[in-house]
Amino acid sequence: MQGVLRTLEQTGRLIVLAGWMSLSMAVAAPESGANSTTVVPPTWWTGMHNEQLQLMVRGDNIAHSQVTVDHPSLKIINIASLDSPNYLFIDLDLSEAEPDEFLFTLTKQGVTTGQFTYTLNSRKPGNDRGFDQQETIYLVAPDRFANGDMDNDSIAGLSDKHQPDAPGGRHGGDIQGILNHLDYLQHMGFTQIWSMPLLENAMDSYSYHGYAITDHYRIDPRYGSNSLYRRLSHEAGQRDMGIIMDVVLNHIGSKHPWMDDLPAADWVHHGGEFSPTTHRREALHDIHGVEADKKAFSDGWFVPTMPDLNQQNPFLATFLIQNAIWWVEYAGLSGIRVDTYSYSDKAFLSRWTKALMNQYPQLNIVGEEWTTNPVITSYWQQGSHPADGYQSSLPSVMDFPLQQALVNALTNEESWGSGLIELYGILASDALYGDPYNLVTFTDNQDMSRIFTQLEENYALRDMAMTYLLTSRGIPQIFYGTEVLMANPGTDQHGIIRSDFPGGWPHHQQHAVTGEGLDPQQQKAQNRLRTLLAFRQQHPEAVTGNYLHYVPEAGIYVYFRLDPQGMPVMMGGLNKNADVSELQLERFSPQLSRITQLTRLKRQQDRCCNGRLTVSAGAKCYSMAAAIT
Amino acid sequence: MQGVLRTLEQTGRLIVLAGWMSLSMAVAAPESGANSTTVVPPTWWTGMHNEQLQLMVRGDNIAHSQVTVDHPSLKIINIASLDSPNYLFIDLDLSEAEPDEFLFTLTKQGVTTGQFTYTLNSRKPGNDRGFDQQETIYLVAPDRFANGDMDNDSIAGLSDKHQPDAPGGRHGGDIQGILNHLDYLQHMGFTQIWSMPLLENAMDSYSYHGYAITDHYRIDPRYGSNSLYRRLSHEAGQRDMGIIMDVVLNHIGSKHPWMDDLPAADWVHHGGEFSPTTHRREALHDIHGVEADKKAFSDGWFVPTMPDLNQQNPFLATFLIQNAIWWVEYAGLSGIRVDTYSYSDKAFLSRWTKALMNQYPQLNIVGEEWTTNPVITSYWQQGSHPADGYQSSLPSVMDFPLQQALVNALTNEESWGSGLIELYGILASDALYGDPYNLVTFTDNQDMSRIFTQLEENYALRDMAMTYLLTSRGIPQIFYGTEVLMANPGTDQHGIIRSDFPGGWPHHQQHAVTGEGLDPQQQKAQNRLRTLLAFRQQHPEAVTGNYLHYVPEAGIYVYFRLDPQGMPVMMGGLNKNADVSELQLERFSPQLSRITQLTRLKRQQDRCCNGRLTVSAGAKCYSMAAAIT
Repeated sequence: MQGVLRTLEQTGRLIVLAGWMSLSMAVAAPESGANSTTVVPPTWWTGMHNEQLQLMVRGDNIAHSQVTVDHPSLKIINIASLDSPNYLFIDLDLSEAEPDEFLFTLTKQGVTTGQFTYTLNSRKPGNDRGFDQQETIYLVAPDRFANGDMDNDSIAGLSDKHQPDAPGGRHGGDIQGILNHLDYLQHMGFTQIWSMPLLENAMDSYSYHGYAITDHYRIDPRYGSNSLYRRLSHEAGQRDMGIIMDVVLNHIGSKHPWMDDLPAADWVHHGGEFSPTTHRREALHDIHGVEADKKAFSDGWFVPTMPDLNQQNPFLATFLIQNAIWWVEYAGLSGIRVDTYSYSDKAFLSRWTKALMNQYPQLNIVGEEWTTNPVITSYWQQGSHPADGYQSSLPSVMDFPLQQALVNALTNEESWGSGLIELYGILASDALYGDPYNLVTFTDNQDMSRIFTQLEENYALRDMAMTYLLTSRGIPQIFYGTEVLMANPGTDQHGIIRSDFPGGWPHHQQHAVTGEGLDPQQQKAQNRLRTLLAFRQQHPEAVTGNYLHYVPEAGIYVYFRLDPQGMPVMMGGLNKNADVSELQLERFSPQLSRITQLTRLKRQQDRCCNGRLTVSAGAKCYSMAAAIT
Repeated sequence: MQGVLRTLEQTGRLIVLAGWMSLSMAVAAPESGANSTTVVPPTWWTGMHNEQLQLMVRGDNIAHSQVTVDHPSLKIINIASLDSPNYLFIDLDLSEAEPDEFLFTLTKQGVTTGQFTYTLNSRKPGNDRGFDQQETIYLVAPDRFANGDMDNDSIAGLSDKHQPDAPGGRHGGDIQGILNHLDYLQHMGFTQIWSMPLLENAMDSYSYHGYAITDHYRIDPRYGSNSLYRRLSHEAGQRDMGIIMDVVLNHIGSKHPWMDDLPAADWVHHGGEFSPTTHRREALHDIHGVEADKKAFSDGWFVPTMPDLNQQNPFLATFLIQNAIWWVEYAGLSGIRVDTYSYSDKAFLSRWTKALMNQYPQLNIVGEEWTTNPVITSYWQQGSHPADGYQSSLPSVMDFPLQQALVNALTNEESWGSGLIELYGILASDALYGDPYNLVTFTDNQDMSRIFTQLEENYALRDMAMTYLLTSRGIPQIFYGTEVLMANPGTDQHGIIRSDFPGGWPHHQQHAVTGEGLDPQQQKAQNRLRTLLAFRQQHPEAVTGNYLHYVPEAGIYVYFRLDPQGMPVMMGGLNKNADVSELQLERFSPQLSRITQLTRLKRQQDRCCNGRLTVSAGAKCYSMAAAIT
């Protein structure tokens, strides 16, 4: 579908409207045309928190038109044009508007230059899901997870075609593939799905990752459609699962139509020419820093194919705010993951998060800030009170510092300053965060080597990493395929890290869902993860309660989760010793004194606590029962 | 002098009074005795900020005595005894007292058990010096700096005798040795002298370091006397230099008389038995931490010979507060360095710093917190607003994070995450500090390898380290002998790190003061330091102004100091490239656009700025002149 719209020149009457390249809507028959006019957001709703709406209208030479609307309940507050002759921004006051279709007429010097209808819908109830520590997130690379619809592997008009054997090519995975795996994911115990971006990436090549968006209102047809995405969210919801959208505020794909006709000269940084970011995020927080270094970080581009957006342009800022709200409302999302969070304009991020959270107080939003320095990650989280007074409404941040510390803790030799003390030390910095329990924690993700590779394919260490991740503070995220030990030996190429999920394609020999073709270690790994996820669901108090830990001693790290009354409900331990250790329990008596029973997760056996506990090497996790006194 | 006091039993009349083991005073003829009675503080002053004073009186079986004083202007507010029968604590209200001698009478059931006179002096004006960024601190190990008085190398009654060849023995350095070097230090350009502790360490062996104090009111006679210390401060003051006292709040020497007769059972931790600290300071700040780990850090001892004080005992807390005030007032100190700062009780540290700063608003106090994590160091500095609301009045902290970062910056290979970026990154965390400009910065100190050794005796790197230290933000501290490249090759033994200062002993072949016997590199190093110190004195605006820096590029790090109007007054650079580099100045145009002249420190040559600057490898420092517009 290439454009649900007609121009005045073509039809004498301009009806409708849609997403940039076209949003499938039932308003009018599609009709393509070089001079097509578009309006975004494609629809909106009455009864929203913010009663104002800014329409961004694109059409040949429509700048500086006058605008009228056919119903007095919808008030036009302001009309603006920027540098391009082909965009018009219309500010509306919706406070008295009822759900309806409205006819807008554009005129210049008394002559009608265009018309379009715009639909305001009534909100459907129930958009109040978020995600918190009770949840576990499953992260998928949609092109690499499962190919549920062979018919959309290549799409006419989109030049990056099906290349299933190329590491950087499109492999055919899609939303239908995720839909087909909802039961599997539910049975595994996952409750949230974060997919890498699904919006259109009409790039010539290397588009499968999704971060080069070319239409902010259209699901890429190689993944499905807007309505299929909405269906995914709906069907997930029926399983008490939620969908987290991967939102890209910082940049677009170079094939975005904006790049042929920038709404304003300052819409993208560096005049649309590639100038790389320094990636030196420290500059943002630096009281000694120079403006040039801050800009070199914020305004630089990632790669030549991804122009860097200038969110200081207030019209672009509004576009991005409304776009995110539109998707949450349209698809009933439970959360947002923001790509390359800190690279966008700071003041804009403050506004953007506030607008989202004002609209959806239950929503969760997690920002990606890739640094292992918690002084920097914590800066962005709401409630962290940084020294410069920066106000953020961002509820969550990706916990990169913990990721690195966990891997270091497991792989580095135990010494005064290395090994388990690194994990302890990072957690001991949690006072920096507004809410450390709302951080998203992970062992790996789409941009780094898989955890099994980071741990040099040591299964015991992998087991410790998974056990810790799923019982520590924070909201754990698991990268797809981790359950069956996916790895990227000998390379850190993204296309290999994001290999195809076993069984996601009909020709596969290994099937993660059925277990077919998995070796015993993979089966064991999958079962262990399933057990841990079941534990999380059966013991919500154990994974939401206050975290408490002891300084590591003799290669053993011990931590607890406490119920609201301070009673321990879970005891976890990482034992890095090669052999069985005797853990003297007296040290933990403030937690254990009223406990009569420790139930080991793995074997469902009871252990009592006669002053010491025999712990074999590896990760241990016990649920606890208190003596009835 | 072994005790300026008499007991009632001995003399029928008890006359005062002195420091624990004896403070030399002109009140009475000295007379030693097993049953000697002592009062501390040995004297006090009228007109102090806090108008209350607590006397700690020690004498056989004086606990639970009644106390009267012979003048109504001095009010006894409270009398207390603790667990020992031999201590009495007398709280006085000085608000109406005039300078005078007062006779105190102790009675039990109507029978006089003792008398002592107590002197209140009037304050001398002028105790309002501190130290700030204009200053440069010279740190000496007094036993190893210069032996100015051969007669006190060994002292009768103090068993640790002169052992000049033993790395851990007493070498004979003393206060007279420092006095003899005041002209040298002044001519070098130092303005503050921090000596490791000078108070009595009546330990059997290994006492030269001074941190095992056995009398809080007595200069160790192997160093001199209280009056000689006061003279040092006075003579330094005449050269516009200040004296910083090294105060030990955390522990005492095991030979302290308290250890034979603890005033209270809880006076020291662990009942006086050795139980080591974990050194895990992270536990203090850890929102997930357990009380046991906090106590294991705070209450543990350093070594068996240093009992750990329990400052939660309010009488001990008052003793320590009054002791520090006494020395500042008595000797006219400009500052205090607090040893092992964080190991003392947090609430006590809050009180102690507040009491000092209330009394001496101009004073500076710097705490030692040995961690390279600025989240932890910053916690202690006034104005840092940590998340737990901890209130500190500590003006300054030792900048261990910068020390490590500077060495890393110079010795690590330049890469994305290593080399100069490490220095930049630490400074970019300065927002954590209440006042980063008031940190004490250093390249090395008495507890770590000397900087020349840390830099593998690479002179060029040493030059960069010194130049940076003396032009960066903060108050620089130089360890004695650094000017002549003292080093500790092949060992990190403290006794070698703290070797004898060249020329401090008559038999030395090398003399730092005269230059005799120094090799050309040592002479060059000393001259370079002298040049840098002169620059600091000639350009106070350059070393006190706001610090501004640029993200390192191509192995070059550039920083500026700005005057209050934002005009640059100094430009510094570290060039790690092996060869001469061409520095493109356009990047720095916000600072350089109005500058017409750069004057190179080293050669006093002018350079103009024709768009680029030729910089050879190593450290560069330019003062600047602006165009007259």
